[in-house]
Amino acid sequence: MPPDSSETKRRLLESAAAEFSRYGLAGARVDRIAHNAQANKQAIYAHFGSKDQLFERVLDDHLRALVDAVPFTPGDLAGYAGASFDHLTEHPELMRLSMWRYLEHGEEEDQQPALDRMAAKVRAVADQQRAGSVDDTIDPLDIMVLVIALSTAWTLTAPALLGFGPDPRRLDEQRALVVSSVARLTAPAAFAAASSG
Amino acid sequence: MPPDSSETKRRLLESAAAEFSRYGLAGARVDRIAHNAQANKQAIYAHFGSKDQLFERVLDDHLRALVDAVPFTPGDLAGYAGASFDHLTEHPELMRLSMWRYLEHGEEEDQQPALDRMAAKVRAVADQQRAGSVDDTIDPLDIMVLVIALSTAWTLTAPALLGFGPDPRRLDEQRALVVSSVARLTAPAAFAAASSG
Repeated sequence: MPPDSSETKRRLLESAAAEFSRYGLAGARVDRIAHNAQANKQAIYAHFGSKDQLFERVLDDHLRALVDAVPFTPGDLAGYAGASFDHLTEHPELMRLSMWRYLEHGEEEDQQPALDRMAAKVRAVADQQRAGSVDDTIDPLDIMVLVIALSTAWTLTAPALLGFGPDPRRLDEQRALVVSSVARLTAPAAFAAASSG
Repeated sequence: MPPDSSETKRRLLESAAAEFSRYGLAGARVDRIAHNAQANKQAIYAHFGSKDQLFERVLDDHLRALVDAVPFTPGDLAGYAGASFDHLTEHPELMRLSMWRYLEHGEEEDQQPALDRMAAKVRAVADQQRAGSVDDTIDPLDIMVLVIALSTAWTLTAPALLGFGPDPRRLDEQRALVVSSVARLTAPAAFAAASSG
């Protein structure tokens, strides 16, 4: 590889993220990715193998960036939701890449592998329930779904179903609402009663 | 048109819904839609014009079915969320069609038209806030986003981001959680305090 190989690779990944976010895997054009990265198609195949592999790499990188920026904190689900809101608002392409991946991948018959991927988080929530810090009347998997639905309300649900994203003039207010909503829904019943009286 | 024209049309719409839900607009194959409807491609063009128009017709029909089955009830947002959960669980293709429409349509620069489409619902929620039946400390547009995010947590967010849908063995429990979550988040502060003590 030439000395500027890592710089070319970085430009290709950036160009690919924009292309895949906009057009998905099937609709993405390898020559447009190369052109926008001031590289050639051969560089893509040399660095990443295929268009499919490049898509997976881009999605993996974006998911890893989310996990690095927003560690899962089962003891502070509201804070986790707020930090997720921040990251996804700053990186809206992640939600589009995830939706493309889901739609283009087809529906899986067996949902068990997906449930298995959530198992560690669900166990951590169950631990918090046993410790009395999270409402134990709600199934811990359902808690995760609620937290994620609220975290992504403005970056996934509203764009996909309503056609608009977070309001740049009211970001703080919308973030605070996500945080307070998760806090209200997951607080143990006794705490909710005591704090609202 | 031959006498069986409306029956052919019905079969084509059913076949098209399955095809578009699975493959999106660009990926859908008109000959596959025709084949699965035991019709020919010409029938599609005669009845619907083009593949694009057929997609819009299918999405419109599904959205109209949702609106018919689940009228918006600003005075009972929790009930609205529960009824939405029911309809979307029974018709998961609507969420996929909506996501395809959003992703393939590209991102709109101007979000105002989308906000305008929500204006009547937002005004109705604001009326409820003035009447004291909905928490008036939350922006009424944000209330709508929360309600819709919770209504679609198991049919949009969980499938797209986590890879699984509602649990068929726990549908009642998951529906009840959507209803109670919307009730808790939208109840006026005074009511929440009185009812939780």
